[in-house]
Amino acid sequence: MPEAARQALADAVGAGGLLTDPADCWPYGYDNSRRQCLPQAVAFVTDAEQVAAVVRVCNAHRIPLTARGLGTGTTGATVPEPGGVVVSFERMSRILAIDPANRLAVVEPGVVNDDLQRAAAEHGFFWPPDPTSAAVCTIGGNLAYNAAGPKAVKYGTPRENTLGLEAVTGTGERLRTGVMTSKGVVGYDLTRLIIGSEGTLALVTRATLKLTPLPEAKRTLRATYRDIHSAAAAVAAIMAQPITPCALEFMDAAAIDMVRRFSDLGVPDGTGALLMIEVDGPADCVDAAAEDVGAAARNDGLIELAVAADKDEIAALWRTRKALSPALRHVAPKKINEDVVVPVARIATFIDGLEHLSREHAITIVNFGHAGNGNIHVNLLVNPDDPDEMARAAVCLSAVFDLVVELGGTLSGEHGVGLEKRDFVDRELDPVAMDLMRAIKRQFDPNGILNPGKGLPPA
Amino acid sequence: MPEAARQALADAVGAGGLLTDPADCWPYGYDNSRRQCLPQAVAFVTDAEQVAAVVRVCNAHRIPLTARGLGTGTTGATVPEPGGVVVSFERMSRILAIDPANRLAVVEPGVVNDDLQRAAAEHGFFWPPDPTSAAVCTIGGNLAYNAAGPKAVKYGTPRENTLGLEAVTGTGERLRTGVMTSKGVVGYDLTRLIIGSEGTLALVTRATLKLTPLPEAKRTLRATYRDIHSAAAAVAAIMAQPITPCALEFMDAAAIDMVRRFSDLGVPDGTGALLMIEVDGPADCVDAAAEDVGAAARNDGLIELAVAADKDEIAALWRTRKALSPALRHVAPKKINEDVVVPVARIATFIDGLEHLSREHAITIVNFGHAGNGNIHVNLLVNPDDPDEMARAAVCLSAVFDLVVELGGTLSGEHGVGLEKRDFVDRELDPVAMDLMRAIKRQFDPNGILNPGKGLPPA
Ligand SMILES: Cc1cc2nc3c(=O)[nH]c(=O)nc-3n(C[C@H](O)[C@H](O)[C@H](O)COP(=O)(O)OP(=O)(O)OC[C@H]3O[C@@H](n4cnc5c(N)ncnc54)[C@H](O)[C@@H]3O)c2cc1C
Ligand SMILES: Cc1cc2nc3c(=O)[nH]c(=O)nc-3n(C[C@H](O)[C@H](O)[C@H](O)COP(=O)(O)OP(=O)(O)OC[C@H]3O[C@@H](n4cnc5c(N)ncnc54)[C@H](O)[C@@H]3O)c2cc1C
Repeated sequence: MPEAARQALADAVGAGGLLTDPADCWPYGYDNSRRQCLPQAVAFVTDAEQVAAVVRVCNAHRIPLTARGLGTGTTGATVPEPGGVVVSFERMSRILAIDPANRLAVVEPGVVNDDLQRAAAEHGFFWPPDPTSAAVCTIGGNLAYNAAGPKAVKYGTPRENTLGLEAVTGTGERLRTGVMTSKGVVGYDLTRLIIGSEGTLALVTRATLKLTPLPEAKRTLRATYRDIHSAAAAVAAIMAQPITPCALEFMDAAAIDMVRRFSDLGVPDGTGALLMIEVDGPADCVDAAAEDVGAAARNDGLIELAVAADKDEIAALWRTRKALSPALRHVAPKKINEDVVVPVARIATFIDGLEHLSREHAITIVNFGHAGNGNIHVNLLVNPDDPDEMARAAVCLSAVFDLVVELGGTLSGEHGVGLEKRDFVDRELDPVAMDLMRAIKRQFDPNGILNPGKGLPPA
Repeated sequence: MPEAARQALADAVGAGGLLTDPADCWPYGYDNSRRQCLPQAVAFVTDAEQVAAVVRVCNAHRIPLTARGLGTGTTGATVPEPGGVVVSFERMSRILAIDPANRLAVVEPGVVNDDLQRAAAEHGFFWPPDPTSAAVCTIGGNLAYNAAGPKAVKYGTPRENTLGLEAVTGTGERLRTGVMTSKGVVGYDLTRLIIGSEGTLALVTRATLKLTPLPEAKRTLRATYRDIHSAAAAVAAIMAQPITPCALEFMDAAAIDMVRRFSDLGVPDGTGALLMIEVDGPADCVDAAAEDVGAAARNDGLIELAVAADKDEIAALWRTRKALSPALRHVAPKKINEDVVVPVARIATFIDGLEHLSREHAITIVNFGHAGNGNIHVNLLVNPDDPDEMARAAVCLSAVFDLVVELGGTLSGEHGVGLEKRDFVDRELDPVAMDLMRAIKRQFDPNGILNPGKGLPPA
């Protein structure tokens, strides 16, 4: 990095705002994809003017600039480019307003998701996006990835829960998008364009988020099925009736077996698939809602439908699902965790296809996920020290993606594209649409300094 | 129009697909804004390939091209440019799929909103966008304007209820955006970018719409208040509790007076504001929901809270609201009907401000609208034959827009910008954002042939 650039960055963020020692910079060079690249500098911004100043320096010197929340992203979008600079939002973490009457919150991007949830809960509200990583990820990261969790099936993703943004383009210009109201149709929708763009179009400096009132009560059900076909039929039946569950999670046979190897968690024998279902609503309604959803969940393949009556029973029902991640870590040195989506009615076909691919390529595949959205986390269990297995896994993975596209699905539901999936997205995206995306990128960031190489394959 | 262009258009749409006689073309030259401009030709398309062919001809000859659903738009976005061509989607009106398990419908853009609702209802679903014009407007028009209605407060607008699109750019290239699933984060969100773009970025040839299960039951309440402050406080209280109503409509004192002049509709004396509230949900829950919402609606200024028990009572409660439009037509030769939005907590301040402006400019202003979204229809009653009044109204209207922006609102909630508001939007939109919008327009439509002059003021 030219000394002039280093100095200008230091001036932009002030004393204590810039790291350049490689030892200090390393921790900002990776994310949960396990990819890593040493940034030349890390700039800690505290306000939008500083963000704009940092961008202007990087733009003037053509230095790649990667935004960073807390680095929990799983597809490598947070990993800097060689020779690049990281702009960290961890010191820009103020909740500026919680406004119940207008059902909104105004936050800086470095606010941790859980902190927002706590602050909103004091007023009886929540922000629907609920990644499992909520305790350790930021709103900026949530917006950039359009990250979500179980609640998305009822309450939507960041795109459905954000009213407006303030941001800085690749030339260091500040802009405001969207509205403060729940409706607004003036101008093109730049808010949703920036959401999900993985820090490649603009850096978010402030967000106006739509809050939702906390439901009064919740009920938890666990349904076990003989096979994936009955479970998938139940998912489709649940989604075709008027009560939308606030969670509709599933585990396939391989996932259940995996958990069983370590402990008996009370799942009936012969269980080939499991659904966790939650409904929420007014206290005097949730029992009826649970009954309606339970009725939809019942079919010939149902083994057992358990409804939790209290906190302990809820915890007991979730135990199998929660035991899965630790079990996976035990079993395989590495899991290739892919996040794909297929139309809900095609879940069974998809799981059948995965079983077939698993046998064909001799790779263990374990599946779970947000069934109500058709959002399946496909885990290929591999040993990184076995080059043959790794090669088979790569071929298998490519076939998984082909299957997803063939079934009318999408290659990512919530984890994004980043570097991991970049070279696969042209299987899904329309070429004309992709050209337009690249053209839009050039308008926001003419010199291509904002997180270059992420999200879209090179032209 | 050069003969070569006319011939090429005729070839593109086939026999019977092109009108060029001015007498035939006139009916396609206006919309509900009462603006009018004779198109040189009207092309009736029946499939996406024809749409692309029409666009290519117009692009080659630099002929402005305006899409048309059923011409019910109120802001002039459907009115062709001088020398322009209209492409009518009325013959492209097939419902291609209703898919309950995947909660989606696939439609051509010329499908009438009500026809879709009927087809979806057969499967127990609906598409939430519910403009009052549902019987006479198309999905293409709904998408292009992001049109909505009372249900938006609970169920959202087209942007929250559309999964993907097929469209044709200004160079005649066909593209596909979005997904068929309820989640998807691959690539930038071109779907929402095209929605609300008023036919200026691309012509929609097919839409995959997200369907919602029909609620089992509904309850209707009418609350009358001494003044707008109590009504607005009730709106904020209702929006701050967990039950979101599926309609939360209001009328101000001027609107109630207007109706009263013609008939006694059972609104108590001293009523200064009125709310219509509806809740929906499972049959065994709606009474409790109505009670909760009713409790939030109660405050010191409440005069009467009426809950309808049956169909007749529901109709009786709605009578006052429904009598308003005819009453307005009686009273004033013309109404300037503006659709603006303010944050819900500022509705009372806004209405106070409007009363002030009404006195200052000696213009009668009548307000009603979707209070739950802060979406107010502001009606200036004027006599077009009185040039002095028209001049005062213009000044007053400009002050209304300033007030909206000052209160953190937006100049349009559902009727769009078109030609009517084009020259006001720079009061609201950020200049950097506006430049980016124009740049995006150039990427989709390099020669600016798609509905030029609509939505954004000239650079
Ligand atoms: C244990 C674990 C569980 C997880 N569970 C889920 C889950 O359930 N659902 C899910 O969707 N994801 C999940 N994730 C992935 C990850 O947590 C989310 O994507 C999260 O949104 C990332 O937030 P972050 O603050 O860590 O962002 P980072 O990883 O730091 O950054 C993510 C992206 O956001 C960009 N970015 C960050 N801040 C800004 C800004 N201010 N402006 C512009 N761009 C910005 C970065 O450049 C990068 O492209 C999980 C991860 C882990 C490790
Ligand atoms: C009595 C009445 C009540 C109304 N009530 C409401 C209401 O409650 N809420 C509300 O939001 N609006 C309302 N409107 C306005 C209007 O009905 C809506 O905006 C509706 O969506 C327009 O549909 P349309 O088919 O008539 O579209 P048009 O007026 O024909 O076109 C509207 C816009 O869509 C574009 N367009 C049409 N088809 C396509 C396509 N295939 N691709 C790209 N662009 C296209 C046009 O170019 C134009 O910009 C009302 C209008 C009337 C007359």
